[in-house]
This record gives sequence, C-alpha cells and structure tokens, in this order.
Amino acid sequence: MMQGQRRAMEPARLFLGLLAVSAALAASSLHQRPPQPELLLEEEEPELGESPSGSLWPLPRSLRILPDQLQLAPTRFQLVHGPGSTAGPGCALLQDAFRRYYEYIFGYSKWQNRGQRPLPTGTELFQLQVIIGSKDSECDNYPTISSNEAYQLSVTEPVAVLRAEKVWGALRGLETFSQLVYEDDYGSFVINESEITDYPRFAHRGILLDTSRHFLPLKSILTNLDAMAFNKFNVLHWHIVDDHSFPYQSVTFPDLSGKGSYSYDHIYTPTDVRLVIDYARLRGIRVIPEFDSPGHTQSWGKGQKDLLTPCFNGEHRSGSYGPVNPILNTTYHFMTDLFKEISSVFPDAYIHLGGDEVDFTCWKSNPDVTEFMKQQGFGIDYAKLESYYIQKILDIVSSTNKGYIVWQEVFDTGVKIKPDTIVEVWIGTSYTTELSRVTRAGFTTILAAPWYLDYISYGQDWKKYYSVEPLNFPGCEKQKKLVIGGEACLWGEFVDATNLTPRLWPRASAVGERLWSSKNVTNIGDAYNRLVKHRCRMLRRGIAAEPLFVGYCDHEYRGL
Amino acid sequence: MMQGQRRAMEPARLFLGLLAVSAALAASSLHQRPPQPELLLEEEEPELGESPSGSLWPLPRSLRILPDQLQLAPTRFQLVHGPGSTAGPGCALLQDAFRRYYEYIFGYSKWQNRGQRPLPTGTELFQLQVIIGSKDSECDNYPTISSNEAYQLSVTEPVAVLRAEKVWGALRGLETFSQLVYEDDYGSFVINESEITDYPRFAHRGILLDTSRHFLPLKSILTNLDAMAFNKFNVLHWHIVDDHSFPYQSVTFPDLSGKGSYSYDHIYTPTDVRLVIDYARLRGIRVIPEFDSPGHTQSWGKGQKDLLTPCFNGEHRSGSYGPVNPILNTTYHFMTDLFKEISSVFPDAYIHLGGDEVDFTCWKSNPDVTEFMKQQGFGIDYAKLESYYIQKILDIVSSTNKGYIVWQEVFDTGVKIKPDTIVEVWIGTSYTTELSRVTRAGFTTILAAPWYLDYISYGQDWKKYYSVEPLNFPGCEKQKKLVIGGEACLWGEFVDATNLTPRLWPRASAVGERLWSSKNVTNIGDAYNRLVKHRCRMLRRGIAAEPLFVGYCDHEYRGL
Repeated sequence: MMQGQRRAMEPARLFLGLLAVSAALAASSLHQRPPQPELLLEEEEPELGESPSGSLWPLPRSLRILPDQLQLAPTRFQLVHGPGSTAGPGCALLQDAFRRYYEYIFGYSKWQNRGQRPLPTGTELFQLQVIIGSKDSECDNYPTISSNEAYQLSVTEPVAVLRAEKVWGALRGLETFSQLVYEDDYGSFVINESEITDYPRFAHRGILLDTSRHFLPLKSILTNLDAMAFNKFNVLHWHIVDDHSFPYQSVTFPDLSGKGSYSYDHIYTPTDVRLVIDYARLRGIRVIPEFDSPGHTQSWGKGQKDLLTPCFNGEHRSGSYGPVNPILNTTYHFMTDLFKEISSVFPDAYIHLGGDEVDFTCWKSNPDVTEFMKQQGFGIDYAKLESYYIQKILDIVSSTNKGYIVWQEVFDTGVKIKPDTIVEVWIGTSYTTELSRVTRAGFTTILAAPWYLDYISYGQDWKKYYSVEPLNFPGCEKQKKLVIGGEACLWGEFVDATNLTPRLWPRASAVGERLWSSKNVTNIGDAYNRLVKHRCRMLRRGIAAEPLFVGYCDHEYRGL
Repeated sequence: MMQGQRRAMEPARLFLGLLAVSAALAASSLHQRPPQPELLLEEEEPELGESPSGSLWPLPRSLRILPDQLQLAPTRFQLVHGPGSTAGPGCALLQDAFRRYYEYIFGYSKWQNRGQRPLPTGTELFQLQVIIGSKDSECDNYPTISSNEAYQLSVTEPVAVLRAEKVWGALRGLETFSQLVYEDDYGSFVINESEITDYPRFAHRGILLDTSRHFLPLKSILTNLDAMAFNKFNVLHWHIVDDHSFPYQSVTFPDLSGKGSYSYDHIYTPTDVRLVIDYARLRGIRVIPEFDSPGHTQSWGKGQKDLLTPCFNGEHRSGSYGPVNPILNTTYHFMTDLFKEISSVFPDAYIHLGGDEVDFTCWKSNPDVTEFMKQQGFGIDYAKLESYYIQKILDIVSSTNKGYIVWQEVFDTGVKIKPDTIVEVWIGTSYTTELSRVTRAGFTTILAAPWYLDYISYGQDWKKYYSVEPLNFPGCEKQKKLVIGGEACLWGEFVDATNLTPRLWPRASAVGERLWSSKNVTNIGDAYNRLVKHRCRMLRRGIAAEPLFVGYCDHEYRGL
C-alpha cells in the first residue's frame, strides 16, 4: 500500500487498518460551492483523527482499552461457548451468530494468506468464550421490550471472555468484539486488551420502514436488519400497509393484498413475513407491525367491501371513500378476525395501531354517519366518533392479549387508552411539550419526531440527529423514566430499494448511538472519527452506507 | 397479473406494459408529514396519467404516434443495416449498438416464451433498418462538439426505418426506437406506427462526475455512461483530480497518483481511462477531463516537488502549501509535459482547465511571490498573477492543439482568452447576468449553475431543474446562439459509489430533456407521466434510479 497520506500518519495508531483518510488538507477547500439562493451553509470539512475509542459504535457504557495488542490468526481463532455457559452448541441463535461474526471479522480481508505462522508466546488471542449466566438463556425466545441486553467483555491473552445473562447481551457483545478487531499495516488482525461493561440507555431502539408507498423487496428488509444489528437497534417498526398499497398477504382475507397490493409480485407472503421475523430474532430484533386505521386505509378498501366510509356529494355518493366506516358492525367483525390473525403471525407482545391523521371530511358528508352521531349523542364532534372507533379497535386487540402502540393523536384526542399503552410522539414542532404531556398522564412513550430521516438535506445532517437529547423536556424523574426509547423513521414517499440503504445509513447510526450510549456521549468530533470508520465497516459488510464527507474506505462498496 | 388498480385502467392505453401505478388515490394523503421547523412544502401527489407521447424521454422534436399497433416477435425481430447505408457490418459501433438495444428491448421480460406463433398478416414489425446517409458514417471517429445527432425514424409495417447522416444520429434514434416498444397486458411486445424527426436543441449536454473527493469505481462510471445514453447526454465532464486526491495515473509523472491518490487501489490506470473513453464513444459520448489549476491542487503537491506555493507565517514557512507556484519556470515545464500527455490520452478536442476559486492568502504570504509581483509590475493585484499563470497554461494547452473550457472566474478576472474558449457558468446567484456578460463578450458558454445536483432536498426537486430555461437571460439572438448547452453537476463531497446513481437519476433526466427537446416542452404534468415510465425503464436496464414519488415499477430494482 504505497500512499502518501498514510505514511504521514503515526503507524502505530489504533484501528488504522479500517480506514485512512487524507488528513493532510488542513483547510477545507470546497470546490464549486456557489452561494445558492437556498442559503446553504458552507460545510466545513471536519478534521479526521483517531478516537481513543477506536471505531466502536455505539460507544459502550464503560470502556478501557489497553495499549497491549494481541494478534488473531484466522485459521486458529475460535468463537466458542465458555465454561459454565447455560447455552451450548444446541443454541442455534448463538451458533449462527458465531459463524456470522467470524465472517465479519475475517471474511472481507484482501490478504487471505496470513496468520499461519506461529506468533511469539503471549501475543495471540485464541478464543472468544461466550458465557451465558442465566439459567434460561432465552436462546429460543423472541426478544421483548424487557430483554436483557447487558454484557461484559474482557479481552486478555490468551482468551477473551464475553459474559451475558441472556443471549441478547451476547449478541450485542459479539458485535462489540467484532468492532474491536482491526487490521494493522501488515494486514494482520489485531485487538487491544480491553475491558467493557455495556448495556443500553433505552430499551426501545427502532427503525421504521414503510413498505406501502413503495414495496421493499425482502432482500432490502433483511439487509437493513443486518445494518440494524451493526448499530445495536432492536426494533423493526414495520409500517407494512397504508393508503397506497396493502402488501401484507392475509390468510383470512386474501383479497386485501390480492386487490390492494401494487401487483401480484409486490406482496409479502406468510413465508416472507416469517422469514423477516426469524431473521430479526437471530439478531435480537423485534418486529412490530403497524396496521394503521381508521385513516391511511385506502388500499384496504379495494379488497374488503363496505370497509371504508362512502363519501357523499350532497345527496349522492361521490364514488370516493374516506376512513374506515366506524358505524357498521361488519367493520368490527372484520377487524376482530384480521387482528386475530395478525396477533398470531407476529410474535411480539405489541402491535402498532396507528391512529394518526384522520380526516373527518368524508365522515361529515355521509348521512348515515350523521345519523349515527346523533344516536350516540356525539353532536358534531367527530373526534368523539374517532375515539369510539379506536376504543373498539383497542378492545379487539386487547382481547388477543397484545399490547399496543399508537401515534400521538390517539392520546391527544382523549381516547380512553389502557395504562400500558405506548404513545409514539411524531409531530416535529412541539415534541418536547408533547413528551411532557404524555408522560405527565403516566403513559410510556417513544420519540420519533426529531428523527424523520426521509427529510433529506444537503450536508452533514447526521449531527442534527445526533444532538437530540430525548429526555430534554420539562418533567420529573418519574416522567423521564417513561420515555423508553425512540425510532428513526424512513417514510417511503421517495424511498425504495434503489436508495433506501444509503439514505438510512449511516444517518440512522447517529440515532443508534443516542439511544444506546450514555447521555454524556455528545462529542461531535469524537463521534465523527468513530462513525467514519464504522461506516467503512458497514461497507465492508455489504451495507451501502453513504459517506459522511470526503475521503475513502480501504474496502469500498462493490455491490453496484 | 391480478391487480386491482390495473384492472381499473383502460386496457388499450399506450405503454401500459411498462408501468402501472395506483391512480385510484385521488387526494394525496401524506402520512406523517409533520410541520417541521425547516418549513417543508407539503408535497402534493401528482396525478399520474398517460402521456400522448408514451414513455419517450427526452421528447423528440417532432413526433406522430398513430393508433395502429404492430407486434414484435423476439425470435424474429432484427436490427439491421438498411439498403444504401454507408455503414455495414464492419461498423463495430453500430453492431455493438444493435446487440445492446436488442437486449434493452427484449432482454428483461418476465415472460420469455412468447411471440413464437405466427401473427396475423400486417400486424408484425420484422425489422428496424438503420441507414446512414453520409459518405463518411464517422463510425470509427470520436464524437465531437459538432457531431450530427439528427435522425428520422419511421415505424410502419412490416419494417421500420431509421435514417441518419452519421452514426451519432443512429445511436440517438436507436434509443428512441427502444423507448417506443412496450409490453401489452398479455406480455407481447408492441409498437405503434410512428413518425419521428429529431435533433438536439443544444450541442453540449453534459454530466459532471467528481472522482477526487470520492473515488468512483470504474463500474460506477460505466453504469453512469449507460444512463447518460438513455437520456441522450453526450458529454462526460470528468472532474478527475482535485485537492483531495489525484487518481489519474500519469505515465510521465507516476508519483502524482502514486503519492496523491487515496490509496494504491484508488487509481485510474491508463487502461481504465482508455476503457471509459471507448465505452463512452460507443454511446456517442465525449469525455472531457478537467485538470483544474492553480487552485484545487493540494493532492498534486504530494507527488510533484516544488509545484505548490509554500505558505509563510511571517518570515518562516508554515509547512502548508497554497495554489500552484506561478513564479517558477519548473512549474511550466511540468505543466507542458503533463498536458502533452493528457492531450494525447484524451481524444476530445477540449480539455477543461478549471481556474476557479483561487485563494490568494498563501501567495500573499510568500516573499518570493511578493518579489515576483514587484518585478512584473503587478502591484498588489493578485488577480494579475492569477491571469499571468492561467495565460501561460492556456498557451501550453493551445500548443497541444486542444481547445479549452474554463470556469467563469477566468473570464471574470479578465484573463486574455482565445476567442474559441468555452466559459462554464456555475455561480448560482447571478447566472443570467453572467450569461449576458459572457456572451456579450462573444464567448461560447455552458450553463451549470442551476443544475448542481449534489444539493439534495426533500421532495420533487426534479421540477426545479426541469423548469430552467437556459436562454432566459438579457441578450440578442446572436448572444443566445453562444449558449451551446449545459451540465448537470454531481460534486463528490457526499457522493460515492453507494449513492451516486439514485442521487443522479432520474433528477438529471430533467436536465437531459431541457437540453435536448424543444423550448416549448415545459408541461410538468406530461413530463411527470413520461418520466415515471422512463425511470422504470432505467431500473429495468440496471440503473438504480430513485422514485419520483409513490408507486411501483413492474420490474423493480434487483441489484441490491
């Protein structure tokens, strides 16, 4: 590797192997940066350096990296179950993870024939022993909101030990271990002796994908689950259906996708859904489906007669349809059967029920709805009708023994919701006030508002996402505890398989660290140094994560 | 294909085969669109319909599509040299194009076994005959600024005829022909009888790619050349080197890339460069390299001693370097040898010499430069020194018999430039005034300012690029004639192989139509209808062009 910039750097710096970027350019010279009418900010090129924490992302809660380096020989190094672990070779989840992380650590190297020679005594790491402490490793379970993701990692010669109560912690620790290994200037795999104690700050760390506005091929979803694991996300919020299409294939109501999907091959079959859930489980990721109603349901109406409210133009039907028709018994029979199916297909304890952005115009136009309002004593308060509908849906879902998540409007309009309902805050302008209100009322909440990643803009917008402090709202300690996490949302108006991955990563990584690491991990410069390397690592692992700024990776994206 | 939306559409509509999008949603319902502080515009979902011009992009100058449909049988249909053509099977460029377009037309179908049965007489198109009229077909030439790209296409039963004076027109006509063919509901390939006369509005229709801020693998560049051909672009403006890296491997000065590139494998070898030029030629695309100086040359300094100006801190060298050192004879010897090589490597008659954004700070700090200024009688006017330098570079390049293109600063600072110099206008705020000034001074110009595609924003920004009228500036007819075209520029600060294609396409397509089609082709609704289909066609041909809005393509992107 003959290369000017690299020579100029100190050769013994940590993690140099993953990436070297021209640090020689002191002042940023931004070619062709016109003063555009849009008033773009001049982007200063950040100075790239070495973080004391190497390339770790997200940063562990407690971390000590020692100067002593150990080498790993790909032909000898093993990931194994350690002594006393309650999980053994019968634990498919860990076996699969061992193979996967062996590949992540060694599999992408340009130099395949090395590490064969014996190393001097005391300089080689031979094993990573994984020891599950709890009697129930949870190896065959699905992850839940209360899964224990804590782990301890001790890297010392000749054997590293990863301890966790449950497999979920082991998965997070394996990711961290793989991030500690780097290639030195001679192409050898090296790790520093280290001590790490780690656990997440927030229990719910989600990514929302929207498969209704554009269908996402299964491969896109699985690739994204990989990237989520690399960033310690643990929830896929699957916004699976919406106005535009209904790709979820229901066994009970096959016409929903048969008539409501974009086409015959823009459908998720039961096998597809199963595959997503299993693939996610193996990475410690929950899959929470969203079946949003009564609004956002235009595509539902194509395959289910009389489900939507017929709109009127004066005395006659206009031919168009509004939200779900809340006044018919058939609606609730249908919903009961549908949610019964959904609750058995999706193992997670929660279903997202949406409940956002209900437009009353069509309801108001419909004489039968007007009559019903009168009977129920709702007057002309259509929010009451919305509440009536949602109340019934919540009861239906409760009867399937599922908990539910709703968008903030359901709380805002005063629907009576169970105390264990999770309210997701998404409206951008006033989210701190909303967090105060929701938690003051005693509800658990998830924050999405500042992390709408479909809103793209020129430059380094990851910093904006990174700088959000989720608990920075007026409220007491008890209220703060009710914020269980957040979600980075990639709505699909302008996103499909062509641009999903680079639009989401590494911008979502900023959210990932915010939700995992300690509150005081806020140094943008240090974050940049680590994230640049983390992004290169994602590339190496097949994720087309876009660049943060000028520079390059040793292993560029080859998946064109 | 069971599918609700599709059934609802008229079955016989043109070009339905390429794409069907849910047109059923009358009102746009934009899920989760919070009133963000950035004051985003609510994006109205455009109503998607059928354009009378089908999926043609860019729109031909004159077009008549008749209702009569002809079928094409993949096993029988042929692209052939027509009677009297001056180009025959010996013309590799056309042979290659025939094979390529056969593949584009038939190669991506989901249904392979059809078209075998004989069709009713008078309903089948058997051939496309390509007839080159001019004695010199230019088959073995490189395209130039004055290449004739005009063609006439007549589709009638049983044989279609494509007439062009030169191969360049034939290439454009083949693209148009391929865009006329669509698949009907039964999976048959169909074309309507048509008459087209076509030629470009502007001669220079370019895409700027930046391979210095991020290295682009060869595959990215070739894929982009494909996409350019699909959009009738004819110039690759290759911003090959800049401050950040020098990936061009010079035979004369191997240290330039040896020390100035990001790494050993972030280099374009002479073979790579050759391949790009040949691949472009076969598609009627010129390759104009940019070697920008005296600014934007930090990476040059690594492999060429004494090329850059040493900056001073008071009386001592600061250790950093400024623009090219304009006071040394060695500078001009070096440039003479370098441009001699460049002018022989790149066959195009033009080289882009940059000349933008020269920072005088370092020159001002250097006592030798100060002394030189005195000797030359420049006073403290460093623009004069800049002119002095650029004048010499222009003379050097002129002596290699190349023409040159420069960024607008070279004109603005009053450098004496040859009358045939092309001035590229890039500064966004005042480009109409600049176009007036440059053309009033009698210089040929290229417009880039309104088409900086690296500036991304949320939503349908293609409309902004589409709505630019390049000749809408104060000036007489003679001045307008001096505007020979424009360029869509994708600077590389935040772009590499991970996101280049979806960021560029189909946004650059808007620029492509503006530069090819008639001035009065400005209907945004019609453009949307055609561009949605054109984008799906690009997907089918392996270009990861991003979506314009919600919807889907029959053949989604599979190249994850």
